[in-house]
Amino acid sequence: MKAIVTVMLKNGVLDPQGKAIGQALGTLGFAGVGEVRVGKRIELELAETDPAAAKLAAENMARSLLANLVIESFSVEII
Amino acid sequence: MKAIVTVMLKNGVLDPQGKAIGQALGTLGFAGVGEVRVGKRIELELAETDPAAAKLAAENMARSLLANLVIESFSVEII
Repeated sequence: MKAIVTVMLKNGVLDPQGKAIGQALGTLGFAGVGEVRVGKRIELELAETDPAAAKLAAENMARSLLANLVIESFSVEII
Repeated sequence: MKAIVTVMLKNGVLDPQGKAIGQALGTLGFAGVGEVRVGKRIELELAETDPAAAKLAAENMARSLLANLVIESFSVEII
């Protein structure tokens, strides 16, 4: 199964990379761009064949390694 | 409208960050993890209210700034 772990900065945490992208888009002439936030998308190929178990495993991986839960939140999707 | 731009390395392009994550997961005791690939998720708040126009704008932003089309591909989702 494939697990997609999406890791984003929590609301309220300053996102300088997003701010830089927003400013660069303005400089390039794109108007009407409000807040920009940047996160990570991690695609994991898992040997597990049960979707519920795969989701649980991916959530454990996110908690142990992929996300810094102090400033980031994550979501897991199984496809 | 909110546009989600997902940028991933193209298939066949070496992903050292993904490889490092795969090895670290193995070291932490997670078994059955195959290929790991890491990409970016960029959330843009757009003033545009027409979904088709917003998608077109986000695609243009991805082509101009967000993705390096030599080694990366992107997809846009409007929510």
